Amino acid sequence: MIYITRRERFNAAHRLFREDFTDEQNFAVFGKCSNPNWHGHNYELFVTVKGDINKQTGFLVNLKNLSALIRDKVVQQIDHKNINLEVPFMSGKLASTENLAVGIWEELATHITELGAELHCIKITESENNFVEYYGG
Amino acid sequence: MIYITRRERFNAAHRLFREDFTDEQNFAVFGKCSNPNWHGHNYELFVTVKGDINKQTGFLVNLKNLSALIRDKVVQQIDHKNINLEVPFMSGKLASTENLAVGIWEELATHITELGAELHCIKITESENNFVEYYGG
Amino acid sequence: MIYITRRERFNAAHRLFREDFTDEQNFAVFGKCSNPNWHGHNYELFVTVKGDINKQTGFLVNLKNLSALIRDKVVQQIDHKNINLEVPFMSGKLASTENLAVGIWEELATHITELGAELHCIKITESENNFVEYYGG
Amino acid sequence: MIYITRRERFNAAHRLFREDFTDEQNFAVFGKCSNPNWHGHNYELFVTVKGDINKQTGFLVNLKNLSALIRDKVVQQIDHKNINLEVPFMSGKLASTENLAVGIWEELATHITELGAELHCIKITESENNFVEYYGG
Amino acid sequence: MIYITRRERFNAAHRLFREDFTDEQNFAVFGKCSNPNWHGHNYELFVTVKGDINKQTGFLVNLKNLSALIRDKVVQQIDHKNINLEVPFMSGKLASTENLAVGIWEELATHITELGAELHCIKITESENNFVEYYGG
Amino acid sequence: MIYITRRERFNAAHRLFREDFTDEQNFAVFGKCSNPNWHGHNYELFVTVKGDINKQTGFLVNLKNLSALIRDKVVQQIDHKNINLEVPFMSGKLASTENLAVGIWEELATHITELGAELHCIKITESENNFVEYYGG
Repeated sequence: MIYITRRERFNAAHRLFREDFTDEQNFAVFGKCSNPNWHGHNYELFVTVKGDINKQTGFLVNLKNLSALIRDKVVQQIDHKNINLEVPFMSGKLASTENLAVGIWEELATHITELGAELHCIKITESENNFVEYYGG
Repeated sequence: MIYITRRERFNAAHRLFREDFTDEQNFAVFGKCSNPNWHGHNYELFVTVKGDINKQTGFLVNLKNLSALIRDKVVQQIDHKNINLEVPFMSGKLASTENLAVGIWEELATHITELGAELHCIKITESENNFVEYYGG
Repeated sequence: MIYITRRERFNAAHRLFREDFTDEQNFAVFGKCSNPNWHGHNYELFVTVKGDINKQTGFLVNLKNLSALIRDKVVQQIDHKNINLEVPFMSGKLASTENLAVGIWEELATHITELGAELHCIKITESENNFVEYYGG
Repeated sequence: MIYITRRERFNAAHRLFREDFTDEQNFAVFGKCSNPNWHGHNYELFVTVKGDINKQTGFLVNLKNLSALIRDKVVQQIDHKNINLEVPFMSGKLASTENLAVGIWEELATHITELGAELHCIKITESENNFVEYYGG
Repeated sequence: MIYITRRERFNAAHRLFREDFTDEQNFAVFGKCSNPNWHGHNYELFVTVKGDINKQTGFLVNLKNLSALIRDKVVQQIDHKNINLEVPFMSGKLASTENLAVGIWEELATHITELGAELHCIKITESENNFVEYYGG
Repeated sequence: MIYITRRERFNAAHRLFREDFTDEQNFAVFGKCSNPNWHGHNYELFVTVKGDINKQTGFLVNLKNLSALIRDKVVQQIDHKNINLEVPFMSGKLASTENLAVGIWEELATHITELGAELHCIKITESENNFVEYYGG
């Protein structure tokens, strides 16, 4: 069993808030992240997959294919977008990094099986001080 | 003459566009950066000041004061904000990194003189692949 | 189950030595890290906590609270201090990165439970070439 | 149980290809990585070992010894070398990062036991966007 | 006058040697970098251009165009190649980072004028410990 | 004219204070950096030298020689040391990063001439948020 990780990046706007909260309530819970005019981040996405090394190629998966899959299923949907308003897989969800990790897992898991590997971890860094990891389940 | 640099960080939303352009024209010039629903970045701001070492303290400037100044005059105005809509010193300007560097220079230059140093350079990184430097003038 | 990590930083002096060793013995075991006049590091501390996403907030824990807890219980005790002489939770212990990780775990574990999560890992980097991880137990 | 990681670096040339493939087949599978004139990388190697803290020293292992072991058994064999042509432990294998991780594990595992710890993970970064992890077995 | 920098990356093999030297002489001057079987690096290339901000766009140059130019004129010629054997603009030159910086300057300078800016600096990092800067002339 | 930079690293303890100040005065000016029990840092030192490319070697200077010089004249004196108590070239000076940059310039400048280059800049990073640059004079 070997693990291989591919990093992709995207820049997006978001806002943390609940529609059933007043602005004051949102500010109390989410602080400046609830700014109604949005703010944004340079997100880094690390996708780790696992499985056996293919003896023919020496690869677990061809990273060119893994990169193309992540760009097609995730980056193209979210890069230079507004996570709250424009990203189908985040529709109706709070735009937290935690929910983003779960949402990206669901976008990718079955497709990675088709590449001959198993999705192991979605890691998202929102800033140099914060990151989230999700291992499924 | 010695140079000292302080890094501060801010996260903000922005959009590159001209009001006198159609959406198509904006997309042709600014690409996905013109998305009307905004996107955002983790910006890094490097403020370099220059002058002579104070023999009493061994300092050019006290970094605690320089950091407080940058936070008060710049970060507090822009962090977790929308650069196009909410940042007074960017009002009426295209929200490019180039204009941001010039705007921040103008916010800081005279105040740095009051600390006993001279502003030398404003550097802003917008992503790991791009940065802008402005030396005044 | 989701994992979220917060990074905090501190700068400290330390020395690796045993009081029951001669200087020669200390140098033989700990090398230049046993210098009686101390040396120091920029430490990075990564605190990883785990648990379920709160449906109301989209958060595992509010990072503002996690950061405040780490600063209050750890950083305030150790930043710009001498680990051997001034840090209560390291008193009587060898000031190795391994022991530091265990000591910080013990400072934080129960308090993280009060935030509604479980402490998963303490990671400390002492230099760009070395880091320690402790998962409790 | 504590985990400690030591980073070492090496620069090497390599090529991904199969001798039983034509150049066209190699290009179809391995892309530009199959260039017959070689290309190369700055590899970063992270060796993680685990075990109990030695009460006498506060160490899991003395990092000076761990570093010397990795340099002696791995870096000296591969740094500034051609992985396909000159590295004994990669002889007859496809020079993929996956196989490199397994090869380095086999070079180090028993020697780390002699240091009083157990090898936990070999991680190799080939670029800022890709890394492989191997946990044995 | 504003300065903007674009980073691009390439991986390549090379060897430092003189054909008129014996292997012993090459090793005496160039050390392990003279290995006849090649070694390689992950190079980072920083291209800094300068000029005035275009009032219509807020840009010095459109970074999409600058990136495309660097990829077309430099990266496509050198990425996953052997610098000594396959890179036209390095033909007949010692494959040092110094010469590489001068060679890339010559490939780019006039084309950057066509973008409406002036080339200011070529910076190349060969490893985390070494980099070269060339300002023309 | 080409510029080449070599990075070296050292870890040291220090304290910012004046002997003619009371503890209260030192704390007022230098804050927690005046802690009488010391604190410390992982310093990064970047030495930039300039000159012409040697046509025989393709080098400005041989980096192996530049690295050996910096280690011999600077790192060996300061690594794992107390800057206030043990570093001859800092004797009698305030242990600020500014003074450190000037002190290292004076240790290196003439020796770099002997390597056939000219010292251009000493840059020291004390933390990820602060660095000093000194260009002589």
